Amino acid sequence: MQQLVQGIHRFQREIFSQDKKLFETLVEGQHPLALFITCSDSRIDPSRLTQTKPGELFIQRTAGNIVPSYGSNLGGEAATIEYAVAALKVRDIVICGHSHCGAMAGILKPEAVNKMPAVRAYLQYAEATRRIVEENYAHLTDPARRLMLTVEENVLVQLENLRTHPAVAAAIARGELKLHGWVYKFETGEVFTFDPDQNHFVPLAESASPQSEPHRSLPPI
Amino acid sequence: MQQLVQGIHRFQREIFSQDKKLFETLVEGQHPLALFITCSDSRIDPSRLTQTKPGELFIQRTAGNIVPSYGSNLGGEAATIEYAVAALKVRDIVICGHSHCGAMAGILKPEAVNKMPAVRAYLQYAEATRRIVEENYAHLTDPARRLMLTVEENVLVQLENLRTHPAVAAAIARGELKLHGWVYKFETGEVFTFDPDQNHFVPLAESASPQSEPHRSLPPI
Amino acid sequence: MQQLVQGIHRFQREIFSQDKKLFETLVEGQHPLALFITCSDSRIDPSRLTQTKPGELFIQRTAGNIVPSYGSNLGGEAATIEYAVAALKVRDIVICGHSHCGAMAGILKPEAVNKMPAVRAYLQYAEATRRIVEENYAHLTDPARRLMLTVEENVLVQLENLRTHPAVAAAIARGELKLHGWVYKFETGEVFTFDPDQNHFVPLAESASPQSEPHRSLPPI
Amino acid sequence: MQQLVQGIHRFQREIFSQDKKLFETLVEGQHPLALFITCSDSRIDPSRLTQTKPGELFIQRTAGNIVPSYGSNLGGEAATIEYAVAALKVRDIVICGHSHCGAMAGILKPEAVNKMPAVRAYLQYAEATRRIVEENYAHLTDPARRLMLTVEENVLVQLENLRTHPAVAAAIARGELKLHGWVYKFETGEVFTFDPDQNHFVPLAESASPQSEPHRSLPPI
Repeated sequence: MQQLVQGIHRFQREIFSQDKKLFETLVEGQHPLALFITCSDSRIDPSRLTQTKPGELFIQRTAGNIVPSYGSNLGGEAATIEYAVAALKVRDIVICGHSHCGAMAGILKPEAVNKMPAVRAYLQYAEATRRIVEENYAHLTDPARRLMLTVEENVLVQLENLRTHPAVAAAIARGELKLHGWVYKFETGEVFTFDPDQNHFVPLAESASPQSEPHRSLPPI
Repeated sequence: MQQLVQGIHRFQREIFSQDKKLFETLVEGQHPLALFITCSDSRIDPSRLTQTKPGELFIQRTAGNIVPSYGSNLGGEAATIEYAVAALKVRDIVICGHSHCGAMAGILKPEAVNKMPAVRAYLQYAEATRRIVEENYAHLTDPARRLMLTVEENVLVQLENLRTHPAVAAAIARGELKLHGWVYKFETGEVFTFDPDQNHFVPLAESASPQSEPHRSLPPI
Repeated sequence: MQQLVQGIHRFQREIFSQDKKLFETLVEGQHPLALFITCSDSRIDPSRLTQTKPGELFIQRTAGNIVPSYGSNLGGEAATIEYAVAALKVRDIVICGHSHCGAMAGILKPEAVNKMPAVRAYLQYAEATRRIVEENYAHLTDPARRLMLTVEENVLVQLENLRTHPAVAAAIARGELKLHGWVYKFETGEVFTFDPDQNHFVPLAESASPQSEPHRSLPPI
Repeated sequence: MQQLVQGIHRFQREIFSQDKKLFETLVEGQHPLALFITCSDSRIDPSRLTQTKPGELFIQRTAGNIVPSYGSNLGGEAATIEYAVAALKVRDIVICGHSHCGAMAGILKPEAVNKMPAVRAYLQYAEATRRIVEENYAHLTDPARRLMLTVEENVLVQLENLRTHPAVAAAIARGELKLHGWVYKFETGEVFTFDPDQNHFVPLAESASPQSEPHRSLPPI
């Protein structure tokens, strides 16, 4: 804990003066570029990864970058998404999974989360992920590849959940919002995005216009 | 959106090589110092504020750094907290509110969130914050001070909610977890922590041992 | 059932005349000393135990003296607590557990409540109790002591849940409400209260000022 | 609070020895005569009213003796009822309303509970009571009579809610459980029970077999 406190004092002494002017303008309000939904995992730093500055990314982080589908139980995800779209009018939402995700490992090995009832309950919102992997990839037995595939499929599943949110559906319908599915492989620095034409995840190209509305339209390969 | 994609390519070209060795060790697993719960607000960058590196902070972010009390509706907050405490064994949890928080402004001006049902529903978990401010601070009419006070009181309220989570209660009971309530004033770079002796928030001191288990035990001043 | 009806007639013939004057003044309204939250167990009689008269104790009784934490599901406990604090302005709330509690036995032996889905669901609000006992008292194997300990820990857990109720939080914040955790051992007539200094439950002393705001701040012994 | 503590010590010194033998047998378990559901109101003492001893009445008390109908939100009422019927095998359940009930006054004057969201939410389970009174008794304008009528109608409404509980429905179906609707007028000591033949509440007779399954079968008078 002492390390965090000392880090803050170092920030105040050495770093804050660089940000001072920017923060003064941000007192007036925020106009983020996008809502970035990713995992709570300590190995992910969305601002560093995207080289964005304070004020540019509105960030939602819970275990497994899961987005419960819209329903009677309105929790933090529903509120955060609604606020980003309806109040802040973000134009893009990224759901970004990542390699070596503990929550996705929990999907493949349910007994590992047996003593964690809240985690187990939350993984119900990724039950489609579990089934897609189980029913379509029986042949894929290598654990590392199976986990990465689960991460990828989960990004697509959570995008479907995201579309059930009324504010999101309405903004897509009027052409003011695009959705993006990414996977970040932190150990290589690579980011992959789903390409509907190729029907799998491909490296995020610098020039290509970012994919939006990525649905699987073919059976997975 | 193009800015994000270009940022990622800049990260890959210029930054990743600095992190490469660190990330290689992190493939084995994460051992974060703390769970850091803060708002989705784009003006907050927890890693930059605390000068921590990848692998050091497990981060939960939803609007208003709200933590629903534990109950039958298990969402992302309950799962993320349980995973951090029961699986990752973090020893500290920080709830960090911040100046100019839009969710807290929504508490003071409910008509502003009238058209956002998911936000309104989520703010029910901060209803105690609203009542504490309404019933105890009628005399405080300056809007800016009233908002900052709401941010502060909400950190204390969410700490109470956090204590209802079984994994948290069990870890506190065996002396293996401490809770911390902070407020970050981004426009000055200051961080404040609740001091039970003085009964209000004070600047986070570099040397002092960080406050834990902060409860209000006296009427507010 | 006939016994109840005959008891009522005996009350009307022999007892009511003693209470007549008191009840006439109580028609105007009630001003109870405290909200007393205890179990539905037939062996507990709060009025007899505290030697209070009609008008003095506002009483909430459900199985296991459980207080669901505040949230979107507002049931009888939330309403009763809010009414006691916000409308009746009680200054003290006691949560009183008791020896040989069937609900607490259900926590230790979940298979016993397997066929009672409503009981099982309600015990989720005491999941923190179950975990504290399981994770911290593995060495305590004597069933009788283990049950009594569960009763004690549950009183502390339910006090945490109680603090999440907005009316309670607001009244504590302005110094107008105190919380008390008691355990009643009906077979000896003893009442115990949590002493934060000694970190365990001690006999309720006649002269000592009653404990308020009892939290565990140290690992249990 | 000091009065409660002193009352307990008086109980221990002067009263407990009378109960000692009884309590020793009750350590083995409870076999209550009935589940008695009544209001939290401080002016009601069910044990004194029915002249019952410890071990004889299993008691549920929340504001307004309301019994939420069975559904997805399982709270203390559902658990307590299920435990009483399925585990303790009680043969009778009494719902007992009372004169001058503050919760029923809140039904007639909703603006009085406007600032109590949990009370307001809970009164939704007595919405049928409100409508029956509003739609059938427009001619009854005397406030005192209107309140007493609301108390009576609410007992009948809550009996209907009680019948939706699976454990109750199953026990009624096999002839092992009877339901009773009473109103206690504390200022006179009288208890009234619903008489389906006369279609209104009548004084509880000493000899008559207690009414069970009281439904309104005719329009109210």
